[in-house]
Formats: sequence, C-alpha cells, structure tokens
Amino acid sequence: MTAPSTAIDRFHAVIPAGGVGSRLWPLSRAAAPKFLHSLSGSGESLLRDTWQRVAPISGEGRIMVVTGRAHGDAVREQIPELAEANLVLEEEPRDSSAAIGLAAAILVRREPEVIIGSFHADHIVRGVASFGQAVRQAIDAADRGYVVTIGVTPTEPATGFGYIRATGPAPGAPSALLADSFTEKPDLDAALSYLRSGDYLWNAGMFVARADTLLEEMRRSRPQLVAGLEELASAWDGDGRADAVARLWPHLEKIAIDYTVAEPAAAAGRFAVVPGRFTWFDVGDFATIARLGAAGRPNQLVTLGDVEKVLADDASGLVINSSGRVVAVVGLDDVVVVDTPDALLVTRTEHAQRVKQVVDRLKSTRPEVL
Amino acid sequence: MTAPSTAIDRFHAVIPAGGVGSRLWPLSRAAAPKFLHSLSGSGESLLRDTWQRVAPISGEGRIMVVTGRAHGDAVREQIPELAEANLVLEEEPRDSSAAIGLAAAILVRREPEVIIGSFHADHIVRGVASFGQAVRQAIDAADRGYVVTIGVTPTEPATGFGYIRATGPAPGAPSALLADSFTEKPDLDAALSYLRSGDYLWNAGMFVARADTLLEEMRRSRPQLVAGLEELASAWDGDGRADAVARLWPHLEKIAIDYTVAEPAAAAGRFAVVPGRFTWFDVGDFATIARLGAAGRPNQLVTLGDVEKVLADDASGLVINSSGRVVAVVGLDDVVVVDTPDALLVTRTEHAQRVKQVVDRLKSTRPEVL
Repeated sequence: MTAPSTAIDRFHAVIPAGGVGSRLWPLSRAAAPKFLHSLSGSGESLLRDTWQRVAPISGEGRIMVVTGRAHGDAVREQIPELAEANLVLEEEPRDSSAAIGLAAAILVRREPEVIIGSFHADHIVRGVASFGQAVRQAIDAADRGYVVTIGVTPTEPATGFGYIRATGPAPGAPSALLADSFTEKPDLDAALSYLRSGDYLWNAGMFVARADTLLEEMRRSRPQLVAGLEELASAWDGDGRADAVARLWPHLEKIAIDYTVAEPAAAAGRFAVVPGRFTWFDVGDFATIARLGAAGRPNQLVTLGDVEKVLADDASGLVINSSGRVVAVVGLDDVVVVDTPDALLVTRTEHAQRVKQVVDRLKSTRPEVL
Repeated sequence: MTAPSTAIDRFHAVIPAGGVGSRLWPLSRAAAPKFLHSLSGSGESLLRDTWQRVAPISGEGRIMVVTGRAHGDAVREQIPELAEANLVLEEEPRDSSAAIGLAAAILVRREPEVIIGSFHADHIVRGVASFGQAVRQAIDAADRGYVVTIGVTPTEPATGFGYIRATGPAPGAPSALLADSFTEKPDLDAALSYLRSGDYLWNAGMFVARADTLLEEMRRSRPQLVAGLEELASAWDGDGRADAVARLWPHLEKIAIDYTVAEPAAAAGRFAVVPGRFTWFDVGDFATIARLGAAGRPNQLVTLGDVEKVLADDASGLVINSSGRVVAVVGLDDVVVVDTPDALLVTRTEHAQRVKQVVDRLKSTRPEVL
C-alpha cells in the first residue's frame, strides 16, 4: 500500500535533443549538434545544463532523453546517470510531435497517471528557483487536465520568438492563465504592442501535460500518427522494438507539436500558460551567445572552449576555441571567431544570422564539414 | 683557351635567406620563416620567386643560397636545381656581414674575378625585365670597382624604408650614380622632401660588387671578421669545414652589411647606385601582402594558400589558409585571417604592425607556436 501520489510524484521530464543549429556552424554539426556543446558558460553542455535544471524537480530516474541514434553514445557519455530505459533513440528525425508523442506513449504504458514535461535540450535558463516554481505550477495545472506551457515574461520587443496570448485565469487551475493563441516571430510594431499590453508571453517550447491528455489532444487531429506512436510504444519495452521501428518509423508524420497539440488545445480552451520570471535564451546564433556571456558589460570579449589558448588584444565579441589551437585576435570589435578542427568561421555579431547562408553554400561544396 | 670573360659571365648571385619575420606570425615561424612561404601570389615561395628572378641573369649554376642549418632541407626541396656546393648552411645566424661575407670569401677562392650580387630571399619584385636591366647595369659598375646597390625609385613618401641619396654621375660607370648617404626610416616630412627632390632612392638591400672589393671594403673596419670569414672559406671546400665552423663561427661579429660595407664605401666615394624602375615590396607585414594582392582594386579579398577552401561573403582584406581547413569569412572589411595548423590570427590590416606584440607575448606563454 502506498499513499496516493501527488502530481509532482507522477511527473516525468522529457528532453527532446534534436536540431542541428545551422546558425551555430562550425561548432554545431550534424554529428555534434548544439545541445552537446558547452555554450552557456557553465562549463557543461547545454544538454547537461538542461538535465541538471530538471533533475531537482523530477528526480534523476525520471528524465527521458529523446535523440537521434547517432547521438546515443554522446548522450550516454554526457549523462552517465541516465538509465537506458530513459534513452529513446530515434531512427531518423520526425519532428517534435513524434519525439514527444512517443515519449508520452512509452511513459503512459509504464505509468498510466504520468504527467510529462518537455524541455528543449538547447535552451539556456538563468534563475533555477523561478524555473522550478513555474514547472511545479504547470504540473498542478496539467494535473487538472490542461495542456500547459511555461511562457517567459518578455523583457524586450523580440522579433525572433513566438508569442502566446494569455486571456485570463484558467478555470480550476489557480497557478495558470488560459491562453488562446500563438504568434510566430512578429514584426517590431506587433512585438512592441505585445510588450506594452502585458498579455503576451514568449513561447519557450516547454510543454507540461498528463501523457494521456497530450496523446488525446494529438489524436483529435492526427489519429494515424498517434496510432503509430502507440503501436511503437507497445513494442518498445519488449522483444518487438526493432521490428516495430522498422515497420512504423518511416511513416510517422513529421510535424511540430505546436500544430498537433498546442494550437488545437488553445483554440478549444484546454491550453494554459504559466508565466515564468526566469531568464531564458534560445541559443540560436553566435550573437546570442556573445550577448549572454557579456551579461550587459560593454566591449566584452566572451571566450569559450580552450580559453587558455585565446590571446586577445583590444577585441570584443565572441571567440570559441574548440580546436585547441592558439587563437590570437587583435583590434576587432564585435567579432565572432569560431575555431574547430576542420573549419573556421570569422564574422561579426551583427551578421550572426548569415551563418545559415554559409551552411547552405557548403551543402553543395563542402558537405564534409557540416 | 677561353675568350676573356665579360663581367656578366663572372656574375654569381647570392641569396641570404634568413629572418623569421615575426610580423607575419603565425605563418612565418622560426621553423618556417617567411622566405619559405608563398606570399607573392605566384604560387611559389618567396625564395623560389627570388631564384627564378635571378637565374636568367646568373644562370642556375651560379646562385648561392646562405641559410640556417635548420632550413637546409626545406631549401633543397624548394630548389632541387641548387647544387650542394652552392648551399651554405649557417651554424647560427650572425647577421648579413657574415652571411654575404662568407659567400664572397668562398666564391672568390673558387673564382678570383667573381662579381657577386646579393638579393634578399623575402622581397617581392614586379617587373622582371627592369630588374634584370638594373642588375646588369650594377654588374657593369661593380666591374669598374664600385660597391653598387640597386635603389628603387620611390613612388610614395614611405616612412618604413631606408633611403639612399644619389649625388651625381659615378665617375667611370655610365650606368650608375654616386651615392653618399643612407637614411633609415625617415619621418613623413623628410620622406616627402626626399620624394620631391628626386635624389633619393629606396634601399632594397641589393648589393653588387666584386667579391674581392667587398671583402676589402669590409676589412677596413672589420679586419677580424674578414680574417675569420677567409679562414672559414679556406676550409670550406675541403675536409676541415666542420672543425673550422666549430672554432670560428661563434666568434663572428653580428653586424649588418650596411655598416661594414655600404656606409663606409659611400662615405669614401666608392659606392654607386643604379636606379631601378621595377616595383618592389619588402613583405614586412600582412597589410603589405593584402595591398600587394589587391593591386589597387578596392574592397578586394586577397586569398592565399588553400584558396579553394576559403568561403567569403562580403569581406575584404586578406585570408591565408595554410591549415587546409574550411575558412568562412562573412561581413568583415580589411580583415586579416591567417590560419595555420596550430595557430590562428584574426586582425585588421590597420593593426598589421601589432602582430609583433602578439609574438612578444607568446614568447613567454606559448613559445611552441613561434
């Protein structure tokens, strides 16, 4: 006989670890995507940062990592605490509905009342206490039947993020607000009006829900996808996994969970948002990493990697030394130098977004360094 | 019986190949000084460029290279045509009086009437026909007893070069002018007045003289040095070379040939200058290489080394890829990127002179990359 478990005891974290991050080339590669790299200044990889952020909430035994087969060994190495049963290796990437949906389907078979929370492996959060509080509030709202997201309180009219509109209290869930709509990357005027209104939160892609609720929501619009995920899950913990993967994986629909769960739930009044007051970064490009490392100090040179071998004189910006070579930077402002064993990028923070175009050009000429 | 040889038949070129070139770090190193690198855009090293420039004048069999013992194999590899008797390996660097004086002493023993011409291994010359004409004129004046230099007609008030003042016709040598004084790196006002006067030429460090004349000139102020060089030379082509080197080399005075030959000869009216109208560069820093490669075209990105692997977008300046890695440069003007297997430099052309300070700092922290 055990005492009736509280919602937090039934919580299981899920970390989908995917996405190459092509604007972080040449650091981030198909073979070593950004979540495996140390970019936050913690000295740990983004993946391990994420693990350490959620472990105090869920416990180490209740964190599942979903990643590509190619990254399995790197994940095991970075997180030796991860139980093999909590490592889900994808045959090939099928986007977030499949990744999170499969985790939900596996976990709900193991534990029908499970509440899952999904957290990207490549985001940076500062303010762990506030983060933990927001997750606990989201778990409470999820236990009451909502699909819940944690929205980040905007601090500037960012045009690179998605926004969630909160409309008022979520009935029956005192810690959450009802959310009714999403906006992807608004223009500056819209972002300014969102910031002024106070009703909008940044969409940090953190979803919390009962696993059965989440699958039910997804099933409404994607019955075939959920059927495939449930069939996979039913074979997952037995002998038939390999056969099921071979048979089903290639046919799973590739679609983001925003479209299969978040937006339909929001439109139907089943979607809640918990405002988080922590600092959050989607580490999308080198300018973000430079800004993050500078932490508001002007004319700062942020160095990552083998910093002992970086020699800077009158320079600001970002130097990432992941080649172990001596890197000397003299007389350059807002420079970005990313040095890896087989490729070097030199640019300025203002051109951080153009790195993607470099990657596009390399696809045809030098695919071996992507 | 042979016909009486003309002056040009008695000409023997000498290429002193020394000098690390610390403002060209990390390309130029103690183990791989700048003359071994391809910096002129010819695709050949500066040393081989020099060889190919003088060979049409002297013939391939009449070019002596004087370099450090450590660089012997690299020189042999770059110039397979070089006869072993024409390769003089210095035990340790003792400056230009010893290097050129030893060559003179060896050559005059082999051929008493020899006229030698000394040409730095790390300069760039454009206009080979004009260069050849000037050398031939210098040989003629040398045969008449002068110590001769080839002075480059200035095209701008450069403050980084030495200047030679020509005073009028050289008696008995119709192709040359008498020169009476030298000025090292003048200030801008002086350089402007030199340029306006038309009497000054850039000192390109090219000396032509009968070997016996040169040694005689050096002997006046440095009898001990010349005695040492002649003793070395007398043992050079026999069994006693190693003993003589061990005994004499450490005691050779370290002094530039400007002070032991050029200046005293000029003061005594025995020094002539032949004006050269070719384009000449002392490849002192990366800004010079960028300017040289751009050849007057604005906003040019000059690439050297493994240029196929340089991907540039909206960039100007200089990229030297000697690591074989992919180098991407995006949105930077007047940038200097020098990529080598164990060290990387990123700076701007305007800071090219500051590279020397980087090298000074590395002496204590990372001598292994110098």
